[in-house]
Amino acid sequence: MVALTQPSHTALSELVTPALLLDSAVLERNCDAMAQRAARHGVALRPHLKTSKSADVARLATRGHSGAITVSTVAEADYFARHGFDDLTYAVGISAGKIEALHRIQRVHGARLTLLADRVEAVRAAAARARALGARFRLLVEIDTGGGRGGVAPGDDALLAIAGEAQRSGSLTLAGVLTHAGHSYHANGLAAIRDIAEAERAGAVQAAERLRAAGFAVEVVSVGATPTAVCAQRLDGVTEMRPGVYTFFDLDQAARGICGIEDIALSVLATVIGHNPRSRRVLIDAGGLALSKDESAAEFRDGLGFGLVCHAGNTRPLPGLCVAELHQEHGLIACEDEGAGGTATGANEALQAMFDALPIGSRVRILPHHACMTAAPYDRYHVVRGTGTQVHAVWGKASGWHAAEHGA
Amino acid sequence: MVALTQPSHTALSELVTPALLLDSAVLERNCDAMAQRAARHGVALRPHLKTSKSADVARLATRGHSGAITVSTVAEADYFARHGFDDLTYAVGISAGKIEALHRIQRVHGARLTLLADRVEAVRAAAARARALGARFRLLVEIDTGGGRGGVAPGDDALLAIAGEAQRSGSLTLAGVLTHAGHSYHANGLAAIRDIAEAERAGAVQAAERLRAAGFAVEVVSVGATPTAVCAQRLDGVTEMRPGVYTFFDLDQAARGICGIEDIALSVLATVIGHNPRSRRVLIDAGGLALSKDESAAEFRDGLGFGLVCHAGNTRPLPGLCVAELHQEHGLIACEDEGAGGTATGANEALQAMFDALPIGSRVRILPHHACMTAAPYDRYHVVRGTGTQVHAVWGKASGWHAAEHGA
Repeated sequence: MVALTQPSHTALSELVTPALLLDSAVLERNCDAMAQRAARHGVALRPHLKTSKSADVARLATRGHSGAITVSTVAEADYFARHGFDDLTYAVGISAGKIEALHRIQRVHGARLTLLADRVEAVRAAAARARALGARFRLLVEIDTGGGRGGVAPGDDALLAIAGEAQRSGSLTLAGVLTHAGHSYHANGLAAIRDIAEAERAGAVQAAERLRAAGFAVEVVSVGATPTAVCAQRLDGVTEMRPGVYTFFDLDQAARGICGIEDIALSVLATVIGHNPRSRRVLIDAGGLALSKDESAAEFRDGLGFGLVCHAGNTRPLPGLCVAELHQEHGLIACEDEGAGGTATGANEALQAMFDALPIGSRVRILPHHACMTAAPYDRYHVVRGTGTQVHAVWGKASGWHAAEHGA
Repeated sequence: MVALTQPSHTALSELVTPALLLDSAVLERNCDAMAQRAARHGVALRPHLKTSKSADVARLATRGHSGAITVSTVAEADYFARHGFDDLTYAVGISAGKIEALHRIQRVHGARLTLLADRVEAVRAAAARARALGARFRLLVEIDTGGGRGGVAPGDDALLAIAGEAQRSGSLTLAGVLTHAGHSYHANGLAAIRDIAEAERAGAVQAAERLRAAGFAVEVVSVGATPTAVCAQRLDGVTEMRPGVYTFFDLDQAARGICGIEDIALSVLATVIGHNPRSRRVLIDAGGLALSKDESAAEFRDGLGFGLVCHAGNTRPLPGLCVAELHQEHGLIACEDEGAGGTATGANEALQAMFDALPIGSRVRILPHHACMTAAPYDRYHVVRGTGTQVHAVWGKASGWHAAEHGA
């Protein structure tokens, strides 16, 4: 693991590939825009750091806010607590088996953890484990506002039962409600996403009001996913939003107009390692692990393959090219226009043009479908700025699922 | 990173999930069977460690052989050299930008690295960088025997040009030829794979003979992928095979009869964190990162979703259940028979049976489609044996793409 931010003076041409590139100029612009959006709506921004798993990104994403963040694994909670982030919402339904590790994070690093549950049984088991350890956590009840993943429906009686169980537990403090409109990732068109954003807001507020009417204190009404955070028209009754992927953006967001291609801050630097005229492919050293096999944006737009291809110095996709196949450590770039004109001559000219544009040994940047999936397995970011070809910093990040060893 | 093998006395029920489980009894059986297969064919076994990225697995996989192995990244080369493996084939087309890192691995750890190339330009650039560093590497020419990824065709004149370029370079020693019939992963039925295995063998031998006829010394004729290694009828003229995934096997291999379900050594331990009766899903804490989004076996068999579901104590799939959806850290299990009988009552009974079989807080094992993709992002294996529910060791592994820091 790269533990600390380090300055760097390496040229992109000298990096060992595949390597994860992060454009800090675009990142800052994305962070500022979301912070302004939250301020306009009068809600707190609690960015989801599952996308970047990076303290450097977290500092930019929380600029002007309290420093409160959202995480999705014990490893992220541990990493961010070690880096001084002390208000963490762990936004995956809690299970008792994680309580001891989370307690250690609170105890050793002085962080405050807020957990999530949507079942009485889960609350009971987690609370018992916490009591046995002398631990205390804040708890949010997860609300399903249409995503069909975690959560109780806003009108479900279970809502009150869960809140009651937490309140009686002695080791959990009910803090409010949380929802995530994950289905907004499958909605096409801003109008459809606006409707989902309103349903997300209304469901969370309805759940909060039902709890208040039953006598529970509800401090937190937490909503958010990047699509709904960008498209929401109003957030009355909401206290915080938790978007994540907006920090980096990706093809999946661009395919629906949530962002532009020029807003994508993350890319994978790869080297051209071969030309195969028989299979009509350019080979690069970034495969299914380096890019992920995610192809979310294919739901909305054709011709993206497993990612778009740019020259190393910028993030302007080369027309007609995409990563067409992935093996573990190989990516195979194809030109979609190779049959243009329908003649063998036209096809061969297109192929030769691709080989000429991407000579052996040259470097390319690949824009990913889903930034969270692509960034996860790496242990560091190589930070560039705009169209420069110099790396100006190396930023460490968390990865995997395990908290660092005791004492580490 | 977990640097060393550690004994363990943890129960599966105490592990923080998701966690990677490895059944060492199945692993040893798989390793022994492949070693015997290689011995029967009279070829050396140079297992591909990209699947496990683990020195403990490598020691079992090379038992009775020379200890020679295959790797696919600079990080793997570095990791295995540090763990005493000194004969490494880096089986991804070389680019000059990796030469310095590979040179350091040879120099610091005393390993011998064999590289791969299929273009004169790549050979020239790598050789120049090696010369500048005073380094020397062995080189194999990559042959395309139908995979359409890397490699020159066995009859291509470029074969001789590449060999000549290497021979003249002063920093590369031509060692032979290498091919990988990656298209065997998309062939259904053992007869079709047998044909691919023979084409792989024949193509590699043809290339070797052409080089020998032109006066080049060819020591190595390297073939192999797990499907062709298992199905090959004869390997005359071949000197070594390089299968990898056979160590763990997976649903993709089982779907075509390359192995049985009982031969799958790798699984992901997850915790049931929710039941959603509205979306008819059981939620687990293993999502797209913990399982990978690979669904290779869907090409051959329906009903696998993103993986099959077993109780924690064994690897016998629960009938009719699969991981139907993946989010970053959530997996959603569905029962495919929920509409059985076509009645609402039948569907609700099936749903309730699934909820009863997988109570909140219980643990499951998920069998993955593609073991290489699933194992890659983890930093350790929790080693079990047979149907026991105790972890008896923790094995470290490599991950990512970066060599360890200097001096580390």
